Amino acid sequence: MKIAIYGYGNLGKGVEFAVAQNPDAELVGIFTRRDPNTVHPASKVPVFPASEISNHQDEIDVLVICGGSATDLPEMTPVLAKQFNVIDSFDTHAKIPTHFANVDKAAKEGGHIALISGGWDPGMFSLSRLYASAILPDGKDYTFWGRGVSQGHSDAIRRIPGVLDARQYTVPVPAAIDAVRSGKNPELTTREKHTRECYVVAAEGADLTEIERQIKEMPNYFADYDTTVTFISMEEMKKNHSELPHGGSVIRTGVTGNGSHHHTVEYRLTLDSNPEFTASVLLALARALDRMHRRGVNGCKTIFDIAPADLSPLSPEMLRAKML
Amino acid sequence: MKIAIYGYGNLGKGVEFAVAQNPDAELVGIFTRRDPNTVHPASKVPVFPASEISNHQDEIDVLVICGGSATDLPEMTPVLAKQFNVIDSFDTHAKIPTHFANVDKAAKEGGHIALISGGWDPGMFSLSRLYASAILPDGKDYTFWGRGVSQGHSDAIRRIPGVLDARQYTVPVPAAIDAVRSGKNPELTTREKHTRECYVVAAEGADLTEIERQIKEMPNYFADYDTTVTFISMEEMKKNHSELPHGGSVIRTGVTGNGSHHHTVEYRLTLDSNPEFTASVLLALARALDRMHRRGVNGCKTIFDIAPADLSPLSPEMLRAKML
Repeated sequence: MKIAIYGYGNLGKGVEFAVAQNPDAELVGIFTRRDPNTVHPASKVPVFPASEISNHQDEIDVLVICGGSATDLPEMTPVLAKQFNVIDSFDTHAKIPTHFANVDKAAKEGGHIALISGGWDPGMFSLSRLYASAILPDGKDYTFWGRGVSQGHSDAIRRIPGVLDARQYTVPVPAAIDAVRSGKNPELTTREKHTRECYVVAAEGADLTEIERQIKEMPNYFADYDTTVTFISMEEMKKNHSELPHGGSVIRTGVTGNGSHHHTVEYRLTLDSNPEFTASVLLALARALDRMHRRGVNGCKTIFDIAPADLSPLSPEMLRAKML
Repeated sequence: MKIAIYGYGNLGKGVEFAVAQNPDAELVGIFTRRDPNTVHPASKVPVFPASEISNHQDEIDVLVICGGSATDLPEMTPVLAKQFNVIDSFDTHAKIPTHFANVDKAAKEGGHIALISGGWDPGMFSLSRLYASAILPDGKDYTFWGRGVSQGHSDAIRRIPGVLDARQYTVPVPAAIDAVRSGKNPELTTREKHTRECYVVAAEGADLTEIERQIKEMPNYFADYDTTVTFISMEEMKKNHSELPHGGSVIRTGVTGNGSHHHTVEYRLTLDSNPEFTASVLLALARALDRMHRRGVNGCKTIFDIAPADLSPLSPEMLRAKML
């Protein structure tokens, strides 16, 4: 399958690496809104201006759209789905139904297939919730995130006057995870589930007390959490906080029989690189989209609609013989 | 959907309970090879002789076949797939391709849909291996089982002269799991992964030393493991070992990018009742089969072929809005 990347940030770079790990995939181009001469891919792949993508319709089986959910994807994905099979990692949970409707309409008009909200959350975490709740209808779901970098929270800190750089880690509370795993079905507040660790580089002479107050009292982002703020140097930021680890657990506990038998289902990810893992999920989903489109399937899909066998490079016979 | 149960042992009882937890499912009958008068279901459902099942074709959407993998299912599932949509939990991994071929032929002849090897292993564990290996092609899989009762190993002990009853627990070695989770990609021998705990009730005057020797030296079952044997009374067996807990972990570790970013994906089950959880998986799969058959799908399937959305009682719109 011929893959192209639309948008070459952390996620786009991850897709480039993922293509290299999958022998049945070939990267045919990177499309960027920047000046193509300023983009230097890790592989020997041509870089084109995003504006010229319509000229490449015959060369691309699946286009991986690597844009932001706030403003990029709601606009890009429907437009591109008219001309290409596309996949994105749209992660604004509340706006998924609207985005799905827009992309579905566009993809059907163009005779293409599209998948929105691929990745791990939404994505593999959503799938874990679906499977576990279908198996254990009488139960309760919990999701814990981290330890990992939240890009949104880091950005929020960077907007505070006097802050030069910031990195925020979301950290699950071990006692809360233990209580859930034990099947106690605890009712947990936001504060009881996660803490927030902030590493901040402040400008010389900045009022550190004021910065810390603004972070800890910030509504939605930090006010509901136990938050720690640690001021560090720019050197320390670059040395110890340049990676984007993440992960977490989806746990469902439930009962069967007459209610006396308890079960715990847990799906856990520990990721050194959030964007590279997300990109790896997208590439497996792209394989499924390519196959489904060749079978005549059009319109917008989600990870819920993809038969697992379509994600694997192995044949159905091999999967049954080796993996079932 | 109208469900019937074929075979009323621990698994069949689990299916009966699972139907009661799912408002969209109705149990229309239990079919047994025993005298129906000796079978006492937990619910008010009619019990029929297995030999009369052909008379009930119009009343059953999906027949859940609850037989043993050694001799029952290879014969039962193909025969029944000619007349019914069927599902089984066939778990002899090496014989899955043959069983699949037989069931596929029969189901297609009858215009029915069938699913083999549903449950958690094979089943949810297989699915976890497939997803994780499709996402992380450059990686390694590990499966740990337990702590849980192995019926096969318990039966093997019971066949030793002088043994009245036995229960065998498969126990994963914590240090091995920790090494895998840490991403060290260890090469583990059979002995390093699991230990086996045996609880045995011996006949009065039996040679306990000889029983212990026969257990520990039994090829395939125990010889390759560190095995402990504890002799207990029949009362203690009934009091402390009457349940069938099980579970385990499927772990895949892999790398992305230039190989320096490590990832760990773990799917873990902790189950108070192996047969009830297996039955709960079968019921979710039965839902999918019923829907797929109404859409015109015939032939044999596995859990790899089932789009996750088909397992859930929720509509695609609800799933996208609430669970993605």
